[in-house]
Amino acid sequence: MLDTPKSLRMHIGLFGRRNVGKSSLMNALLGFPMSIVSEVAGTTTDPVEKAIEMPPLGPVVLVDTAGVDDVGDLGALRSAKTREVLERVDIALVLSDETGLGPFERELIARLRARETPTLCVFNKSDLGGPSLDEARALVADAGEAVAVSVTTGRNLDGLRESLIRLAPEERILEPPLVADLVPAGGLVVLVVPIDLGAPKGRLIPPQVQAIRETLDADATCLVVKERELTGALDMSGQAPSLVICDSQIVLKAAADTPPDIPLTTFSILMARLKADLVRLAEGAAVLHRLRPGDRVLVAEACTHGLICDDIGRVKIPRWLRQFAGGDLRIDFSGGKHFPEDVSQYRLIIQCGACMVTRRHMLSWLYRAERQGVPMTNYGLAISVVQGVLERSLEPFPEALSAYEAARRKALAEAL
Amino acid sequence: MLDTPKSLRMHIGLFGRRNVGKSSLMNALLGFPMSIVSEVAGTTTDPVEKAIEMPPLGPVVLVDTAGVDDVGDLGALRSAKTREVLERVDIALVLSDETGLGPFERELIARLRARETPTLCVFNKSDLGGPSLDEARALVADAGEAVAVSVTTGRNLDGLRESLIRLAPEERILEPPLVADLVPAGGLVVLVVPIDLGAPKGRLIPPQVQAIRETLDADATCLVVKERELTGALDMSGQAPSLVICDSQIVLKAAADTPPDIPLTTFSILMARLKADLVRLAEGAAVLHRLRPGDRVLVAEACTHGLICDDIGRVKIPRWLRQFAGGDLRIDFSGGKHFPEDVSQYRLIIQCGACMVTRRHMLSWLYRAERQGVPMTNYGLAISVVQGVLERSLEPFPEALSAYEAARRKALAEAL
Repeated sequence: MLDTPKSLRMHIGLFGRRNVGKSSLMNALLGFPMSIVSEVAGTTTDPVEKAIEMPPLGPVVLVDTAGVDDVGDLGALRSAKTREVLERVDIALVLSDETGLGPFERELIARLRARETPTLCVFNKSDLGGPSLDEARALVADAGEAVAVSVTTGRNLDGLRESLIRLAPEERILEPPLVADLVPAGGLVVLVVPIDLGAPKGRLIPPQVQAIRETLDADATCLVVKERELTGALDMSGQAPSLVICDSQIVLKAAADTPPDIPLTTFSILMARLKADLVRLAEGAAVLHRLRPGDRVLVAEACTHGLICDDIGRVKIPRWLRQFAGGDLRIDFSGGKHFPEDVSQYRLIIQCGACMVTRRHMLSWLYRAERQGVPMTNYGLAISVVQGVLERSLEPFPEALSAYEAARRKALAEAL
Repeated sequence: MLDTPKSLRMHIGLFGRRNVGKSSLMNALLGFPMSIVSEVAGTTTDPVEKAIEMPPLGPVVLVDTAGVDDVGDLGALRSAKTREVLERVDIALVLSDETGLGPFERELIARLRARETPTLCVFNKSDLGGPSLDEARALVADAGEAVAVSVTTGRNLDGLRESLIRLAPEERILEPPLVADLVPAGGLVVLVVPIDLGAPKGRLIPPQVQAIRETLDADATCLVVKERELTGALDMSGQAPSLVICDSQIVLKAAADTPPDIPLTTFSILMARLKADLVRLAEGAAVLHRLRPGDRVLVAEACTHGLICDDIGRVKIPRWLRQFAGGDLRIDFSGGKHFPEDVSQYRLIIQCGACMVTRRHMLSWLYRAERQGVPMTNYGLAISVVQGVLERSLEPFPEALSAYEAARRKALAEAL
């Protein structure tokens, strides 16, 4: 995504008076992690634009309103340059500090609200005393949110990120590919689906359809088999698959039937990448290794229609988790789009594959959990851990595999 | 479908006084064509049930209310036997003659309407004078229809059939399989899709998904390739495909790339079978051979969303038809679910693949056209005729192939 043209990137405007901590916030944002791809040096009065990769929003352009910053008064708001920035940003970050809202911020917010630009009021230096968040919330109204952070101490930077993803326009939240980037042109992808197909008669579940479609779009071919037919299909094929993708429920058999030199992964791993953040969810999966009897776990099912997922979430996963933890666990369930506000009592959250919810939803839930210090993983990753095949199925994703292995070592050390 | 259990078959009740022509109607219905599968002889007073195959409704049970027929008065309506029949039929045919509605029919219709049983009032002997269809229509109201026929002369039996399909409960209109019956367990099905996939990003069109799903349900495997990759895929595979299914737009290339001993067909042929009647639509396709400059053709596109289908229907097919006919044609277009009432001016109707409409819709349009003496085919069949590969792609369907060949000979003879 590093070569995403600037015009396609989400533009985030940074507004704020001098000395409110704009540079520090910029550095904090850069640590999300985020890598500077290019820096367009402006003249001293032009806004500075930084095209960056800002997971999970993807490629964005940060527009640092240097002109406004240098003046920091109402006059600046009336300049053509500021108007131009106000007009083109997709989201505005209005930064202030413990002194709260002055005339500059009030007029700025009013203008942003009139333009219906999603606006996030960020009060920095919250360690030095709190401004009125409520007043800021009333001012931005439906158009935005207000958060208090301390860039110095790192307090609530997760909350800031969570608000950002909530405010980002849907069409600017770029979905990464499901499999397209893993498939060479001319390659062969094998999809292994369970004998007991979950979708209604005549259909397939959306990730299966998307995997087939992306394979074709990548000029590769796709062989769809049931678990029983995998060995025969691999024997029959004169071409070694570039990738075998299986349903997590049958990963144990698929991993056994697929020669070790053929890359194998699961739909759940692909969905973790597509809908949320594979590295974080892989780290979350490692927490299974320190689950102990009595621990509280939340199983979060995002859709309400699925009997199949329901059975996995309500019956199979609880059973496997208890076996794996070596005793009883306190397992709660949440359903639909009502992810609990307070999840701090849980040791781990296990989310469904999220076929039916947007990336925005999944990310805001992931950040909410992280803000409360609670790791998250998904059904399929948890199943692969329990069955001892997550390492194998993470191999196509070296960064996620390292993150999982490090987190696993840590979890096992803590469990001693 | 011949072994469909009786309980799953649609039950059609036949009611009528003596001498209104019930036996003749029964015979006429048998000629739809229809084959008697079993005959459950009742006692003289029990209703006679005939389990029959009645295309396009599929397997039905005709319940001939002998008891009512033998008495034909209001008393019969009060008997427990008649109540029992009234309670269990999915559709009621109330047969009368040129004498119109008497007290028997009026009370019968009132009872059927109270039960919300779809009811078709059939006035036989319409050649002898017409009863009040309007009165019958008012009586059945939303619950049914009224038609005038002459079983003796055959007048409007198509109209009767059209009404029947309209009244049949949706869940009783059994869809035949798309491909399941063509795929042996352990077999390999190759789907060839166009490079320029029609569905939005990340999706496939419904017939493609259904074909994959049915293949898996049949314990076979499915290889999905784009047209460019077909040769490579066939070379690569160590197993000869049981069937190659291609998009009609690329049938010429797919037919050339597929060895002649491998069965090949198109999605359009499968859709003709699934949504309508392949034999009739294949016969309709033969009419292309007698199209002459100046002929009127209707291109009927059932869905309104599809730019891809639109381009095929509005641009490509008209161009090909004109080339094939050797001159200009008068081509009209209809769209959405508004199939014209009067199609009698057309030499041929070319319907889209009907992905987005029900079998009930397609069949009622097909019958409407047939009733007006106008043949119908679909986009893909027409394309295959023009490209000279319909015979090849009909090979897996011997009955449809013979019907096409006979109709083609006839069309060519007429064209001389």
